[in-house]
Parts: sequence; C-alpha cells; structure tokens
Amino acid sequence: MSSTSFDILGIGNAIVDILAEVDEAFLGEQAMVKGSMALIDAERAAAIYDLMPPTTENSGGSIANTVAVAAQMGARTAFLGLVADDTFGAVFRHDITSSGVHFPSPFATVDAPSATCLILVTADGQRTMNTFLGASSSLSSVDLDEALIAASAITYLEGFLFYAPAAQEACRVAAGMAQAAGRRVAISLSDSFCVQINLAAFQAIVRDQVDIVFANETELAALTGLDDFDAAAEVVAAQVEIAVLTRGALGSVIIRGDERVVVPAEPAVVIDTTGAGDSYAAGFMTGLVAGESLATCGLWASRAAAAAISRIGARPPGDLSAFRA
Amino acid sequence: MSSTSFDILGIGNAIVDILAEVDEAFLGEQAMVKGSMALIDAERAAAIYDLMPPTTENSGGSIANTVAVAAQMGARTAFLGLVADDTFGAVFRHDITSSGVHFPSPFATVDAPSATCLILVTADGQRTMNTFLGASSSLSSVDLDEALIAASAITYLEGFLFYAPAAQEACRVAAGMAQAAGRRVAISLSDSFCVQINLAAFQAIVRDQVDIVFANETELAALTGLDDFDAAAEVVAAQVEIAVLTRGALGSVIIRGDERVVVPAEPAVVIDTTGAGDSYAAGFMTGLVAGESLATCGLWASRAAAAAISRIGARPPGDLSAFRA
Repeated sequence: MSSTSFDILGIGNAIVDILAEVDEAFLGEQAMVKGSMALIDAERAAAIYDLMPPTTENSGGSIANTVAVAAQMGARTAFLGLVADDTFGAVFRHDITSSGVHFPSPFATVDAPSATCLILVTADGQRTMNTFLGASSSLSSVDLDEALIAASAITYLEGFLFYAPAAQEACRVAAGMAQAAGRRVAISLSDSFCVQINLAAFQAIVRDQVDIVFANETELAALTGLDDFDAAAEVVAAQVEIAVLTRGALGSVIIRGDERVVVPAEPAVVIDTTGAGDSYAAGFMTGLVAGESLATCGLWASRAAAAAISRIGARPPGDLSAFRA
Repeated sequence: MSSTSFDILGIGNAIVDILAEVDEAFLGEQAMVKGSMALIDAERAAAIYDLMPPTTENSGGSIANTVAVAAQMGARTAFLGLVADDTFGAVFRHDITSSGVHFPSPFATVDAPSATCLILVTADGQRTMNTFLGASSSLSSVDLDEALIAASAITYLEGFLFYAPAAQEACRVAAGMAQAAGRRVAISLSDSFCVQINLAAFQAIVRDQVDIVFANETELAALTGLDDFDAAAEVVAAQVEIAVLTRGALGSVIIRGDERVVVPAEPAVVIDTTGAGDSYAAGFMTGLVAGESLATCGLWASRAAAAAISRIGARPPGDLSAFRA
C-alpha cells in the first residue's frame, strides 16, 4: 500500500461554539434536555442567544475538535467541512488551521451563515447544545476529495452528519473511497437521538463500512437496542475491528477481537464536559496510528479527555504532545 | 439634586477581544512590548491574527468591562460606545446587554468593522494587546447623551479614547455635562504610553474636570513625570477628590484628602491579567455609590480583580454580588 500523507482525515460539521454558564432553571424554562444536542433554526437560535448571559466564542464541531486535538498531539490531520465566507467562517478556518490541521474545503456556496452551536454549561459541567447548522449542512458528496481520503490512514466520520440526507450519503461515499484505497474508516455515533432517528443507516454503515466505532453508553444502546452494556458491546465489537466505548467517569472499554481493555478515566476536576469525547477520540487514534497498544491508546485518550473537561471550551490549547509520554 | 437612574455610565471603546496563549518568543518575533497596548491597522491585525494559535473570542474594552462587572455586582450601569452592524458588533451588544448594562448607542455610521483586540497571553499571565479600533474610533461628541450623563452618579471615561482627537474632545464635553449636572467624573488613565503622547490633555482633564482617577504605577509616573510613587501619588491626590492607585500584586493605595487607605491584593493564582484593573474599578465604584468606606471599596475592588485574573478573559462570569459580602 502507498504511504499516507495524513493520519486522520475528519469529515464533519464546521461550527463555532457560543458558550455561556447558566443555571438549571434556564434549561427548564427553555424546555431543553440537559446533555442533549438539538438542531435549531435561525429564529430559534436568535431567541436563545438573546436570553443567554455573556458568551465566549470558540471553534467547535465534534470531529473538527478531534482532528485539532490530534494535530496538537502530533498526528498529521486534515478536515473537510463547510463554512460560509463570514466572520465565524473566518474564525473557524483560522482556529483549525492554526492548530495544524490541513483544511482544504472552499467556502460553502449556499446562502446561509456559518454554523453556530449555542452551548449552555451548567454547574455540574454538563453541556446542553443547540446547533444551527447553516452553511455546514450543505455538505454533500461533491465536497469530498478522493485523493485526500486515499492518502489518509483513517477517515473519521461525524454521526451528526446523518441528520442531513446528502451529508449522510457523503459519509457512505467517503467510507467507500477509503475502503477502496485500503484505508480504515472510523465513525463517532455523536448522539443517541441522532442514532435513533437514523437507525438503519447507522447500523448499516457500522456493519458494512466502519473499522473503528466510537460510542458512549447511550449511543451504544441506541445502536443495538440493548440496555445491557456488556451485551451491546459484544454485538458491536463483532461487527468492527475496534469498538471504543466511553463511559464518562467510569472510563472506557476498548474491544478488538478477543482483546478487551478497560481504561480508567484520568482524574480531573470537571468544569465543562464539552469536547470530552472528541478529545478522547483524538488521543485514541493518535496512539493507534503511532502503532501503540490499545492500553496506551486508551491512556492517551483519557489524558486528552481529562484536559478537555478541566476547562471551559472543547479544545485544550497549546502543544499536547506531553499526553504521549 | 435629582435622583439618578444609573450609578455608573461608562464611555469607551466597544471591542471584542480575540485571545490566545503564546510563548515569549512570539512577542519577540513580532516586536511587541509585553504588557503594552498597541494600536494597529486592519492589515497588521490580519497579519498578527494569521500567526496566532487558536483563539477565544470574548467581549472586551476596558471601560465596557468595568460597567459589565459593576452590573454583575449589582450596580446600575450604562455604556456609550460604537460598534458596527456586523457579527462582532452583535456579539458585543449581546454580551454587555446580557450583563445587565443599558447600552443605547446606535451602530456606528462609518464604513469600518467593529473593533477587535488581539490579546496574547504569556505563561506569566501578562497580556500584550494589539487593538484595531475600527468603528469604535469614530466616537465623538454627537454620540453623547446629555440626559443620560445627567442621570448617572458617575461618568467614567476611558483614557484610550484620547488617542482619537474627536473622542478626546467627547471626553471633555461629557465631563462638562456631568459637572453641570452636579455629578462626578471618573477616568481611567488606561495606558502609560497613551498618557505620554497626550500628556497635556490628560493633565488638564485630571486637574480641571476629574473627581476620581484610576491609575497604575506606570500611568501615574507618566502623568506626573515623577518616578517616586509616593511623591506622584501626592501630586495627583491634591488635584482630585479620590485617587485610586493600583500596584499589581502589591495591592492598591486610595487617597481622599487626608485619608489614605492601603489595600492588599486578594490572593489569586494568576492565569490571565486581562481586565484586572477594569474589574478593580468596577468593585471600587460599586462600593462608592453604595456609600461604603474607602477600605470597603478597596476590598470589593480587590475581590473583583482577583476573580478577573484567576481565569482567561476579562470579565468574570455570573452573579458577582458575593464580592459585596
């Protein structure tokens, strides 16, 4: 097989996060489910924003976070996703590029602003997300780059893309391109509700195209229809090369064939769980492409996740190569 | 005298801060003086931004920070300053309004984007600022609101406004309106370089129009030409009702006539000194309008400053009324 130019190519939503700390009552008044991600339209986004306390803006997007953190840990990463030619589009492009991620996607051609995610952080560190997808939702197969996919060891797909039919189709096409080139396909299930309402599509891609699946407990249950963690883990693990299953403070379980590694969570004071899973995936795949054992991949992953939850915002700043030590 | 509608009316630059952590070498390569504020044009702003690592965006502006934090502590505050009708203008307006600050200024009519400040935070918590003033620099006397000034117990002026002649004139006019209404005038000297190059104007306004002056050691030295802190403090204190002199980790000295109060700094782990002086001024004036002693005003001020430096960004979030306890 030819050598790769990139370790991880992420394909996902290109989003700027708008964060504020709120109390539990705010979520209740707005009929939001704590810890969930809801898709909202521009009008609803404006209404929520008006009610939010002063905010902080940071680049986000689940898979974009992952490739940024992986780059900061020393992996060679790239990203495909769409922003508009506007202020937040420039912010997203600046931040991901300056993290060391190759980001060749041109501006979206649709008449919609760049995506934003209104994130409400409660005192327990939980984040409740309201995403206005805007330009990001116009991603389709024409935005893929077959040469880039073929030159990347892992193509990592965002489950949230399954909400938009054309973007969902792009995931299948990208996975097919990676398979044809002999590369690995990874996916984040992203959100249990997203899995539920696109269940057949998720089950099919995991079964037929995915080598590495990242899921938390509720996403795993949604995919398999099984509430028992061990039973659900067994079902998924039989379908993929590696199942990477996160359990929050309980740590994570990694299964590859007969190999099963249980990784404790790294100790951390929880400030904001935004991006914990994204950073976990970054650490894991950075270890994997470096040829490390599953236990070491899990350790790197847990360190990155701990760094993410110890501060406000999804992407821990600076050089993160120390997590490889 | 008639009753007031507001405790503090701030008049200053309306800026969105763009922060990133950098090492000392970055400052050297860019020929920046650590801890200083430089005015830059759009081209230089773009060049610096391109070189910056991933950023965080927060509303800023020195006097805007002060009225926001004072509102969070329970003071009734308002702000006059100019943003453009663009994304960062909307962010600034949202954040200051949702802090509880009355912000009646309409959008600037000049063809320039909203002001941004590129802030480079080094490991020692020092911030080096590069400000592109854009729409904010078009402030002039026509943007003042005489009824609002007359209805505010303190009109608080930003020294940085002295860089632009029309804005400097607006400061004198606003001070005159406050004086005519029997209200107090406060000023932040903002920056020693700004004081130096507008020395006569600063000396005149302090001598003739200002009741309360906020200055750090270098600004005090610039204003008086005296390097000896005590000698300089005496000179300024003789010209104003209250001189509020901050000395960083050494705390602050407050002088009113024969009364001299030395306030220790509140203990804090320094993460980012951005906004320390702004929050200090907020706490001080919140105490003053509440009728507290100078010692209590200094205590509230020091608590607010400690909160500001303990985290990234200028404005500590949430309800800050606990600082009054």
